[in-house]
Amino acid sequence: MSVTAIKVDGPPNCLLCFDSQAKFISTKAINEIMNSATHTFPRFQLELPQWIPDFLQEQATTFPTHEARMALVTTLSKLNIEQGTGGPFGAGIFRADTHQLVAPGVNLVMSSRSSITHAEIVAIMMAQQILGSHDLGATGLPPHELVTSCEPCAMCLGATCWSGVHHLVCGARGYDAEAIGFDEGPKPQNWVTALEERGITVTVDIGRQEAAQVLKNYVEQNGEVYNGRQGDSE
Amino acid sequence: MSVTAIKVDGPPNCLLCFDSQAKFISTKAINEIMNSATHTFPRFQLELPQWIPDFLQEQATTFPTHEARMALVTTLSKLNIEQGTGGPFGAGIFRADTHQLVAPGVNLVMSSRSSITHAEIVAIMMAQQILGSHDLGATGLPPHELVTSCEPCAMCLGATCWSGVHHLVCGARGYDAEAIGFDEGPKPQNWVTALEERGITVTVDIGRQEAAQVLKNYVEQNGEVYNGRQGDSE
Repeated sequence: MSVTAIKVDGPPNCLLCFDSQAKFISTKAINEIMNSATHTFPRFQLELPQWIPDFLQEQATTFPTHEARMALVTTLSKLNIEQGTGGPFGAGIFRADTHQLVAPGVNLVMSSRSSITHAEIVAIMMAQQILGSHDLGATGLPPHELVTSCEPCAMCLGATCWSGVHHLVCGARGYDAEAIGFDEGPKPQNWVTALEERGITVTVDIGRQEAAQVLKNYVEQNGEVYNGRQGDSE
Repeated sequence: MSVTAIKVDGPPNCLLCFDSQAKFISTKAINEIMNSATHTFPRFQLELPQWIPDFLQEQATTFPTHEARMALVTTLSKLNIEQGTGGPFGAGIFRADTHQLVAPGVNLVMSSRSSITHAEIVAIMMAQQILGSHDLGATGLPPHELVTSCEPCAMCLGATCWSGVHHLVCGARGYDAEAIGFDEGPKPQNWVTALEERGITVTVDIGRQEAAQVLKNYVEQNGEVYNGRQGDSE
């Protein structure tokens, strides 16, 4: 195996970071890291890209309709591609009473070097940090809604249940993401019912065409369609 | 609605944090936050509790059998309760070739104020930070295994698919977690097949009895069984 790039850089306590474009990593280097491990673990840090607060500064402060909220998160999905900060997915946690945006989210998988940071997860994490609770449905909090430019994958479906939101609004269908090569993962067919049984209402197909178009444009522009199966080591 | 506790404390750019025990939050305070929002978003930061590196310092450096790896993560689940850092779940990412621990994980939902930080998610996030890739199955990396003291919930099942691991090893069954009141979420019945179709082998019931006993002990000691449905705002 040839070694083309090893870049030791990144957060100060990150043992080894390499550019996401690096195709080969030295097995020797990995072994050296493992053998010298002193059980120091990194801090995982996640920040929204600066273009998001800059962009929001110019937007309305309330988003009274499903369509208005979807238009915002679909614009985030578009800008995330244009700004080169991640995949073609946007989301937001909104107050369901006043329709104010609490926290936006975009897909940050590649830039944060984490397969967890889908747009919905980022929005949920940010909203919970802002409100200081692991439960957006905690007593005393207003009800919250998760709006996502594409139907949640298996991981984000589970995350929606645990987030404490009372409503979920989806743009593109899972099929639209699968049509460009993303895997939706192991989701039960009756996922809408599964959410409703847990007290979460679901609205689908809001602005689907525009949201699906963002996905199509992404793949036409050769955007990377990553998933967990791309590795070939056994 | 009466207001019993508002604690404005926490990370410097966290708009409002309150103690997880606080039962009431002022709606007025929330409204003031939303109305004064200047679109400054917090940084989400996640660190392992210090007892984990301290504990690992005293352990073996390789864990050659399924049972040895499960014993380690089950001990982490026990210690997480004893140390008061989270719920009764432990996990780890191991190298599948050398059986070395790459990154441990414990449930940090309440302490990190995030419904996302299940043990499996924490282990995946940490391992990906350490290796500098969103894909633990990336070309050039050794194969990795996720070992978890309890079968993954719906969210962690999806996360397993996207993490790049090649093997999953589970202790307690989902039923064992449900028996003490945790919800496993919307998982397809054939979730093992769904993983295997994605190139991930699954081994269940390793040290199930001991792992399930940790769950039972937790609930007998009145550990909090949180989930997204505890909120009552509509």
